[in-house]
Amino acid sequence: MIRALLAAPARYWPEWSPHLTHAFAAAGLEVDLVAEPDGGDFDYVIYAPGGTLSDFSTLPGVKAVFSLWAGVEKIIGNPTLTMPLTRMVDPGLVEGMVEFVTGHVLRHHLGMDAHIHGQDGVWRNDVVPPLARNRKVSVLGLGQLGGACARALAGLNFDVVGWSRRAKEIPGVACLSGDDGLEEALARAEILVLLLPLTPSTGNLLDAKRLALLPQGACIVNPGRGPLIDDDALLAALASGALGHATLDVFRQEPLPPEHPFWASKGVTVTPHIASATRPETAAQVVAENMRRAEAGALLLHLVDRAAGY
Amino acid sequence: MIRALLAAPARYWPEWSPHLTHAFAAAGLEVDLVAEPDGGDFDYVIYAPGGTLSDFSTLPGVKAVFSLWAGVEKIIGNPTLTMPLTRMVDPGLVEGMVEFVTGHVLRHHLGMDAHIHGQDGVWRNDVVPPLARNRKVSVLGLGQLGGACARALAGLNFDVVGWSRRAKEIPGVACLSGDDGLEEALARAEILVLLLPLTPSTGNLLDAKRLALLPQGACIVNPGRGPLIDDDALLAALASGALGHATLDVFRQEPLPPEHPFWASKGVTVTPHIASATRPETAAQVVAENMRRAEAGALLLHLVDRAAGY
Repeated sequence: MIRALLAAPARYWPEWSPHLTHAFAAAGLEVDLVAEPDGGDFDYVIYAPGGTLSDFSTLPGVKAVFSLWAGVEKIIGNPTLTMPLTRMVDPGLVEGMVEFVTGHVLRHHLGMDAHIHGQDGVWRNDVVPPLARNRKVSVLGLGQLGGACARALAGLNFDVVGWSRRAKEIPGVACLSGDDGLEEALARAEILVLLLPLTPSTGNLLDAKRLALLPQGACIVNPGRGPLIDDDALLAALASGALGHATLDVFRQEPLPPEHPFWASKGVTVTPHIASATRPETAAQVVAENMRRAEAGALLLHLVDRAAGY
Repeated sequence: MIRALLAAPARYWPEWSPHLTHAFAAAGLEVDLVAEPDGGDFDYVIYAPGGTLSDFSTLPGVKAVFSLWAGVEKIIGNPTLTMPLTRMVDPGLVEGMVEFVTGHVLRHHLGMDAHIHGQDGVWRNDVVPPLARNRKVSVLGLGQLGGACARALAGLNFDVVGWSRRAKEIPGVACLSGDDGLEEALARAEILVLLLPLTPSTGNLLDAKRLALLPQGACIVNPGRGPLIDDDALLAALASGALGHATLDVFRQEPLPPEHPFWASKGVTVTPHIASATRPETAAQVVAENMRRAEAGALLLHLVDRAAGY
């Protein structure tokens, strides 16, 4: 019998344990899934931030830690976490993210807000937006999420450039990398999508200097991580009119405090970290598959690269 | 030398004549393009509503009329128009329509308005929308525009049903037809897209009885033709909460008068007939290709079926 600990906030137990139990059975695994450390040994930890577990050295027999979150920045610096760590790549999460990103890119592309806000009897039909083929979109971050979004945007005819730290290839997307590539991606981005992981090299990546590279009136969609952008520099660029709009789904502090100036800025749309959610039904199958692989001595899926930070 | 009359509002001349002249030359046609009837004979009329031409019998030598508009309901009932008539099917118009429809369907799918309007410091992250694969969208009308939109929505994973008067086949889209098919398409439509032509059989198609078939809270996107919907029945269904929202781009009277109740209805977003525009650059090539075909005695593209009305 395999023993697994679900180390996560208490509300995860009712949400996740039925799906995990079902997925383990479907994968032919006999698993005793436990909500709290009970003094016994564990083979695996299924992890989400916010629970009581912080010292992994108290669980010496653990063979691998499976994160339920796509982003692992809250756990990767933990010196007691020495066992293999996997990120969650949930097909449901990828689909949800593609829908959020394509929806908000189309919203900015079409200038929808002018009509959503402008229900005042004035017929404003003077501005026909360009076709998507003439709209330049740049996607920073070409991992599972960013890559899927870049592909979907290219499929909608947008003129898409992608940028990532390491060079990638995506059909239909001009892929850039490196510092020069980043400047090029920013300088042409009428709409900029941020789906980078948060690492020591991506924090405040969008600082005042890089924000100033964006074209006049550019829009930003950030469903990645809040600290990718320097908040004050962003507010200044919006206030001056240099940038057109920012739709932000992630923040340094969540929930975003009611007094944070993002709420009052006309150039900002705050969405409350709903761009995409890991869906227990599909994600539990990914955990079960990785546990099956670990038991069979096979390569784990979505193994975190500690040096890169994701 | 071919003689062609551009019968259209005066502002069409500066917008269209350079693109038409260019397209004729590119098609190897020598054309004398004229802005007003001058007593001479014409071989072709290039037509948009709102100009001075109403009696086509004054132009007996005309071999064909090429409409610059996709919808021909303003011209098809003209008894003096006895020569072949073509509709405009502009690739730019199709692309623009796909972008408008996918954008507004995603807007309603994601519940964007709650966030766009709700910038009040309250973190509302309790509602995660379903995935598009679990969102039922019905598209009424599967012509060039409706068919392209249905395909694009299916490509974004939406659960798409299409309906048309005559049975069609579109990969990835369950296609219905007939009266029973219409009831089925309406009864399952969480989001309903209207891209039917306006004909005697489609006027007020969405009357109170058919609106009542839609699921509770359904959203309507109408970039087709205003009279497809009974305005009063729509307002009543929105006021009662039976319907969730309607995004309307087309109206019985345009510009929509400032006193029209659509402007004041919280459940309606008025967009000012901007869903898609014919783009002179691409559309002029379609006119030139049809003129080339007419001169060569070949079948015209997008010939209007007078009996069907489009």
